[in-house]
Amino acid sequence: MSTPLKVAVLGCGSVGSQVVRLLGEQADDLAARIGAPVELVGVAVRRLDAPREIEVPEGLLTTDAHALVTRPDVDLVIEVVGGIEPARSLILAALENGASVVTANKALLAEDGPTLYEAAEKAGRDLYYEAAVAGAIPILRPLRESLAGDRVTRVLGIVNGTTNFILDKMDSSGAGFAEALEEAQELGYAEADPTADVEGFDAAAKAAILASLAFHTRVTASDVHREGIADVTAADVASARDMDAVVKLLAICELRTTAAGEDAVAVRVHPAMIPRSHPLASVREAYNAVFVESEAAGQLMFYGPGAGGSPTASAVLGDLVTVARNRLAGTRGAGESAYADRAVLPMGETRTRYHVAIDVDDRAGVLAAVATAFAEHGVSIQTVRQEGRDDDAQLVVVSHEATDAQLSATVAHLREMDIVRDVTSVMRVEGENE
Amino acid sequence: MSTPLKVAVLGCGSVGSQVVRLLGEQADDLAARIGAPVELVGVAVRRLDAPREIEVPEGLLTTDAHALVTRPDVDLVIEVVGGIEPARSLILAALENGASVVTANKALLAEDGPTLYEAAEKAGRDLYYEAAVAGAIPILRPLRESLAGDRVTRVLGIVNGTTNFILDKMDSSGAGFAEALEEAQELGYAEADPTADVEGFDAAAKAAILASLAFHTRVTASDVHREGIADVTAADVASARDMDAVVKLLAICELRTTAAGEDAVAVRVHPAMIPRSHPLASVREAYNAVFVESEAAGQLMFYGPGAGGSPTASAVLGDLVTVARNRLAGTRGAGESAYADRAVLPMGETRTRYHVAIDVDDRAGVLAAVATAFAEHGVSIQTVRQEGRDDDAQLVVVSHEATDAQLSATVAHLREMDIVRDVTSVMRVEGENE
Repeated sequence: MSTPLKVAVLGCGSVGSQVVRLLGEQADDLAARIGAPVELVGVAVRRLDAPREIEVPEGLLTTDAHALVTRPDVDLVIEVVGGIEPARSLILAALENGASVVTANKALLAEDGPTLYEAAEKAGRDLYYEAAVAGAIPILRPLRESLAGDRVTRVLGIVNGTTNFILDKMDSSGAGFAEALEEAQELGYAEADPTADVEGFDAAAKAAILASLAFHTRVTASDVHREGIADVTAADVASARDMDAVVKLLAICELRTTAAGEDAVAVRVHPAMIPRSHPLASVREAYNAVFVESEAAGQLMFYGPGAGGSPTASAVLGDLVTVARNRLAGTRGAGESAYADRAVLPMGETRTRYHVAIDVDDRAGVLAAVATAFAEHGVSIQTVRQEGRDDDAQLVVVSHEATDAQLSATVAHLREMDIVRDVTSVMRVEGENE
Repeated sequence: MSTPLKVAVLGCGSVGSQVVRLLGEQADDLAARIGAPVELVGVAVRRLDAPREIEVPEGLLTTDAHALVTRPDVDLVIEVVGGIEPARSLILAALENGASVVTANKALLAEDGPTLYEAAEKAGRDLYYEAAVAGAIPILRPLRESLAGDRVTRVLGIVNGTTNFILDKMDSSGAGFAEALEEAQELGYAEADPTADVEGFDAAAKAAILASLAFHTRVTASDVHREGIADVTAADVASARDMDAVVKLLAICELRTTAAGEDAVAVRVHPAMIPRSHPLASVREAYNAVFVESEAAGQLMFYGPGAGGSPTASAVLGDLVTVARNRLAGTRGAGESAYADRAVLPMGETRTRYHVAIDVDDRAGVLAAVATAFAEHGVSIQTVRQEGRDDDAQLVVVSHEATDAQLSATVAHLREMDIVRDVTSVMRVEGENE
């Protein structure tokens, strides 16, 4: 058996500590699968005396991450610090130093992935990041490799456990958003400051990574249209239930056609109603799932825990085995694939469907007036349901596919109409092909 | 861009014709993803004048498969003929000739995989076979690579679409086996001779492949305990429904411990009841899904179409891209990994749970007598339900985990008891951890 491969771990929080644990516990299996033993040579932390989930031999801990990744004998660097800096500088330094890198850093990849991919290319080293999207669920490798002979047309993902937990709770108990968030916080599914999850930043980063791989095009977080779930009401969820649907925060990556007939990529994160019969509808609590549609394979779904120290560490170590084997073989895996270089479709031109609930005066001609407003903006109506009477009359309209610009203009128009008292719920509808 | 890679396709049936179609339609994308164009140089068929789904340029068709795979200029061979011979000889000849091979041949891999893996090793070439299990669903690559840093403990798979269609039909309509089979045949989900599917041979081959990869141990079809679904009755399905469960034909691969405390592998295919709340229970019609449990990742599920020309071709071409890239880089992917070399646990020592429905005389002491029979064989009872009275009295017993030998001895014992009129249903129960 070869000489050991030397591994440095950056970060010893919930993921890093599980990585360190598994490197020890699975050492024999890792060595057999890689073809050489793996030796942990250092763990970079912010404070030496911080409390941790596991005991790290004291000689391995260091606060000098830069010195660790530039050690001449380090072969493999695992970055599980998170955030933009110093993670970016450390990964770049590691690659420049000739190390192969495994990271779980979705925010960094979504913001500045190309810089890292180019550095890996230049160094001739691997940069793997399966753990960056949907935790333990193998989704990047299948997209990049298993579906490499196919044409992926759409990816629909539930890629944020916190928001799925909150929406699932709202659906099962009828709770409002604030109440469900509080419960998620009490149970440890949401952080004290839940902004990154609730406002869709986390899901948008993952959407950018998924779209880049699925469509062989550079997509960054700023290309992703993003809406969070803070405005989802108990009434929205109840309205979805009436339609035999459920509200989910979806990351949606689609191959679409521009007005000029070119392929383009549309990437967005927003709450949406999907039919209960859709495989994604049964994803409960904090679980994640990614639904992929491709021309030849048809519909695939990948399901599992989307976060957590130990599941994320599983994904990190899977990458580590591949990267280590490549290193021993003197080769590297597939680098960035951005040859298709498709345009990103602006949200306004993206075609979606809307569910709109409208409080109206209950008098003759209301339905005709509302239908006319839709028609004026070129939006075709799929169904209208009228509920209640007098002071409590409500129309629920579900449209056919139209551009998001047409749909939002329709809603703005409705809000200005005399007979419309209020537009109480506006939500996109996904998961059904027209 | 490099010189073209030359591809030979063996077989032009439902999968082969889709492979040929996609090689043409996706040529530009394949070239960009591989880094070199792919040129189809021949398609081996049994009869030149057979009807086919696509038109193959006449100069490419040949009936001499052996001559095709041993052409000195062939780089890649795709084998989608199926069956043991001549597929095995052709793959061996192709590898010996220096070609890399992609196959979808589960029967061959399950019967004689090691011969092929050794030939690939000796030739220093790739042998990839993602399409052999669960069609388009990426499951082998995730098991082999994504979970390489984890310890897989169990794989539960619905890996045969025909039997899932039949059992789903029995569940949704109350039909008996014969009637559901007939419908499956009419709709093209079952063949005129349905033996390979219905008797579990197809699923057993896939179970052997899954177990080999999951547990790094050579497992062949003869190591798999196999029971088909021909004896599943409408009463079994109804009884499952009473328990809020559903009957599925499962491929079950488990890491178990022998009496001597060693790790061992238990692999079996049989109909089983699983709770309706289990993710596998919602796999309808002819879809496939594979549920994986591992120590760090937890529970994952992979879902999609398990058969069909186009989905299977997607998996074949995904492998083709990887194998072609490896070839250009002068490297090969991970070969067979059988280092763990675990023993295969005999079915009698495998621990399972039983659901047993017993027609009994309705008199005092019956329950005690039945319970005593279970206890005599060391089987602990989880629940007993008593239904009906007088001539129609029935006990439904669900056991805790015991060895299959203890459980089958208990059933044999029950059948000999005076107070037992008949044991009407015996089925294993899976998908719950004890």
